[in-house]
Amino acid sequence: MDNRPIGVFDSGLGGLTTVSALGAIAPNEDIIYLGDTGRVPYGSRSRDTIIRYATQALSWFTLKNVKAVIIACGTVSSVALPRLISALPLFGVVEPASAKAALLTPEGSIGIIATNATIRSRAYEATLAKNSRGSSVLSRACPLFVPLVESGYIAPGNAIVQAVIADHLADLRGNVDTLLLGCTHYPLLKDAIAQFMGTAVNIVDAGAETAQYALSRIKPTAATASGTLKCFVTDRPDNFEKVGSLFLGRDLTGEVTQVTLDS
Amino acid sequence: MDNRPIGVFDSGLGGLTTVSALGAIAPNEDIIYLGDTGRVPYGSRSRDTIIRYATQALSWFTLKNVKAVIIACGTVSSVALPRLISALPLFGVVEPASAKAALLTPEGSIGIIATNATIRSRAYEATLAKNSRGSSVLSRACPLFVPLVESGYIAPGNAIVQAVIADHLADLRGNVDTLLLGCTHYPLLKDAIAQFMGTAVNIVDAGAETAQYALSRIKPTAATASGTLKCFVTDRPDNFEKVGSLFLGRDLTGEVTQVTLDS
Repeated sequence: MDNRPIGVFDSGLGGLTTVSALGAIAPNEDIIYLGDTGRVPYGSRSRDTIIRYATQALSWFTLKNVKAVIIACGTVSSVALPRLISALPLFGVVEPASAKAALLTPEGSIGIIATNATIRSRAYEATLAKNSRGSSVLSRACPLFVPLVESGYIAPGNAIVQAVIADHLADLRGNVDTLLLGCTHYPLLKDAIAQFMGTAVNIVDAGAETAQYALSRIKPTAATASGTLKCFVTDRPDNFEKVGSLFLGRDLTGEVTQVTLDS
Repeated sequence: MDNRPIGVFDSGLGGLTTVSALGAIAPNEDIIYLGDTGRVPYGSRSRDTIIRYATQALSWFTLKNVKAVIIACGTVSSVALPRLISALPLFGVVEPASAKAALLTPEGSIGIIATNATIRSRAYEATLAKNSRGSSVLSRACPLFVPLVESGYIAPGNAIVQAVIADHLADLRGNVDTLLLGCTHYPLLKDAIAQFMGTAVNIVDAGAETAQYALSRIKPTAATASGTLKCFVTDRPDNFEKVGSLFLGRDLTGEVTQVTLDS
């Protein structure tokens, strides 16, 4: 038993999809969430910049005395994770998501969508190649998905959401059996993505797979009461509270604290 | 006469619209451009964060021995400029752009579009109130314009560009005589914006107005040769080179240097 909280780290709002998955499987765990909203989006940044930002975040989590950190950010997981040094157990999204995609589509075609930095890293391709028997991979960077989500444009019926999805996913539609959402922001667009891709396509949510994987490897809490969620961000909390409330289905107003990582 | 270069500062690519205007009016001036691409977009950040970033940029310009800095960023100009301390002459975009808008529409209706932070600051409204005889003001934050431009989505015929413009500007169409582009990224979308708003609407480009204003107050260079442009960014230069080349109409490949402001 280990009653310390689980840390969840993302560049912005996206990791809340992982928090949601954690809560559904292990409702008694306390969670400390850190969204680096003062520096989102990470996906257009260079490798060195992303490593520097993630290192600062891990130092912060160490002071918070968490038992592990889920790196609920596709960009950090694929670009920086192998270079991060921490005494804490770290769980990235690449391995669990790739394993699930390969399980669903061992021999067909798998689509990967993620940020520019993640696609450039080829981390998902490398991991899929180890896990699959012979599936082919089509990958596509979707640079506007994170700005859309961070600005609250997530409704499947919204004209902007539809135009961006049609532009970014046109090459993949009809050509993949499974679509791996390689960025934890993307599940906020899941309904709209599924509508465009068609119901025959399996959708793998990297954050949700990682929540399940991490919980199978972390000592559980002994607490019997409901777990708490404490959210920290690096810029003003109002937008995070607004869009986060929409996504988690409960009001976060006044519950989000601003911190500094780069002072 | 003063042969030192002019500094131009923006959060990302947008200030290149000001560089372009400077070059057209004063082709002999040397320009040092700094785009804080490692931390763009500024428009969703808090006031304190923006002041901190701008202060770091001004320290950097001081070391570069420029004769003045044009703050070619609507967000920094409206949110941080009154709080910035520097021995250098600083020129923001709010005053020159407001003066021009009030001149064009002394009594009608002026629309202001800018980032969330700029609109929240009400800096343009305050300056317009001082300059105009009785024009009314309609303002609208356009949070997706900067991500669009930074990702290279600027063609008037592009479906995403059209959907975002239709969403963000719907309330202003038909209701304003002059539209003030209060963010220097927006002139990259000028053709698409003009197409949506209609030819009867005057469009004021804050960066271009500021270039003209600043040049009237800076001692000119004595150099007779063509001025040089040196560009610096805080993240990998490739995307800046690509979109910047598209915008300036000349190839920037290999001419952009990466620097660090927050180390």
